Amino acid sequence: MNHESNIAAEVAQGYIHPQAIVEGAKIGEATRVWAFAHVMPGAFIGKGCNIGEGCFVEADTHIGDHVTLKNGVAVWTGVSIEDYAFIGPHTVFTNDLYPRAWIKPPRFQRTRVGLGVTVGANATIICGITLGPFSMVGGGSVVTTHTRPLELVAGNPAEHLGWVCVCGQRLKKQESCGSCGAEVLWKDGAEPSIDENSSATWPSTSRPGVRRPGE
Amino acid sequence: MNHESNIAAEVAQGYIHPQAIVEGAKIGEATRVWAFAHVMPGAFIGKGCNIGEGCFVEADTHIGDHVTLKNGVAVWTGVSIEDYAFIGPHTVFTNDLYPRAWIKPPRFQRTRVGLGVTVGANATIICGITLGPFSMVGGGSVVTTHTRPLELVAGNPAEHLGWVCVCGQRLKKQESCGSCGAEVLWKDGAEPSIDENSSATWPSTSRPGVRRPGE
Amino acid sequence: MNHESNIAAEVAQGYIHPQAIVEGAKIGEATRVWAFAHVMPGAFIGKGCNIGEGCFVEADTHIGDHVTLKNGVAVWTGVSIEDYAFIGPHTVFTNDLYPRAWIKPPRFQRTRVGLGVTVGANATIICGITLGPFSMVGGGSVVTTHTRPLELVAGNPAEHLGWVCVCGQRLKKQESCGSCGAEVLWKDGAEPSIDENSSATWPSTSRPGVRRPGE
Repeated sequence: MNHESNIAAEVAQGYIHPQAIVEGAKIGEATRVWAFAHVMPGAFIGKGCNIGEGCFVEADTHIGDHVTLKNGVAVWTGVSIEDYAFIGPHTVFTNDLYPRAWIKPPRFQRTRVGLGVTVGANATIICGITLGPFSMVGGGSVVTTHTRPLELVAGNPAEHLGWVCVCGQRLKKQESCGSCGAEVLWKDGAEPSIDENSSATWPSTSRPGVRRPGE
Repeated sequence: MNHESNIAAEVAQGYIHPQAIVEGAKIGEATRVWAFAHVMPGAFIGKGCNIGEGCFVEADTHIGDHVTLKNGVAVWTGVSIEDYAFIGPHTVFTNDLYPRAWIKPPRFQRTRVGLGVTVGANATIICGITLGPFSMVGGGSVVTTHTRPLELVAGNPAEHLGWVCVCGQRLKKQESCGSCGAEVLWKDGAEPSIDENSSATWPSTSRPGVRRPGE
Repeated sequence: MNHESNIAAEVAQGYIHPQAIVEGAKIGEATRVWAFAHVMPGAFIGKGCNIGEGCFVEADTHIGDHVTLKNGVAVWTGVSIEDYAFIGPHTVFTNDLYPRAWIKPPRFQRTRVGLGVTVGANATIICGITLGPFSMVGGGSVVTTHTRPLELVAGNPAEHLGWVCVCGQRLKKQESCGSCGAEVLWKDGAEPSIDENSSATWPSTSRPGVRRPGE
């Protein structure tokens, strides 16, 4: 069996690795699910996503379009991930603040990952929070509180380190993006705001299935 | 193959996912082992346990009854886990303080997880310690020292944050549990003690196979 | 199927677990690849290595001889690991400092793990750094900068904790190794240097396929 040889052709309509387990979930077109990943019944995954090797997506989760889950990401009931988010390898979500083996909580905490967010490798996301649009979490961080749009946080617990552009690069205060050139409005001289639809911040790419919002 | 459809009936006598690997280990009744998990020969797992997807349980480990290992937990030789413990997803145990690839240690360090302990998601447990009964480790923590009964610790390295009830909720000093109502004896005005068998702390549950100690 | 029964005989010429996926990579003699591991085309793995369960080794990686990857290690494009390194379970490498789901970086960052390095369990290695020969990273650490030879670091972010011998044990300043007896030259009274080929530091071992440098 040489499943690799046909991937290019299959990407257009999606691909599920023969050693993945997908059980009746709704999965959008051009989404790929890799080996040893498991998508449970009742999960929703949009189009153009990449669900990495060994990922686990539980029921009652919602994953938007063009989301990347790198290898080994655990997405539990109550987690929603918006379009274009990047979840680094081995990142672990949670949905119960004080679990005990013998107690089933009356409801699970909800966690929301905003548009275009980046979560670095091996991060731990403590439940009940929202990661603001295009915010970025450093690798190995333990995130315990909300992040603001474009905010960069890292550490255990994660703390404010600075700001990033929609394009992902660090922003210097009071300046436009030195990388993609996006114009930045610095509110109150301290917190950045960027036109998310500018061509600078959503560069063209050769990757199949990737589109800017509005296309 | 629709293995999900028969799970309810199978739980009574346990379930081993067809994509799990179980090699001659002793596994108690009503214990479930999920996909891509691997239980090695010489491991001992009690009854009513839930061994999550992708877990690895090595030889010369002892796991009690009604223990939950969430997905991707690594349990190495020398680790013992007592009844009713909850080990969060992707938690990693260890058994060698100063490993080198070319040195086989003369013996492995031992780590003991007490009755009813909770370990949060993606924690790292440095070997040679004991986690006291019903203590709780925050998600993403790196635990390097013993925990006391009912103690709540978190961080890297994990430090004392407070106390939790047997039921899992935070305790306020000098008060009974605000959640389950368990009476708390505050020794020396600082360290809590709770009757572990009170009905308040071991609530009834609809989960099959879960019983209080003594039943 | 009892694949365990024949492992002793198979180790001499290597072993690939039937539930591993190995796709055309170059793998040296006497290297073992365990269940649910995946080695991509274009990876290079030397001889006498142990590639643990659930590991992922991407294209354009280079792994030397006698390297141990414990379970669940993710090695991405751009990572090289020299001989005799020990990478603890669930350690995650990275290769993009500021990833976004819709941006393919023009090149990936490179990370180099030196001869005989130890990386503890569940560590996160931020890309673009070099871990010096025989340095040691504590479990659960997030490593953001280079390590010096024989340096011991830990924490998030990882910081200098002290020094270790080639044999892995802690060194006391101005002393020889109290464990293996290796002579230590303390440069400037502060930074240790050890003859890496001394018999003290590369002990004989019964493990098959393990040899000292030069043999």
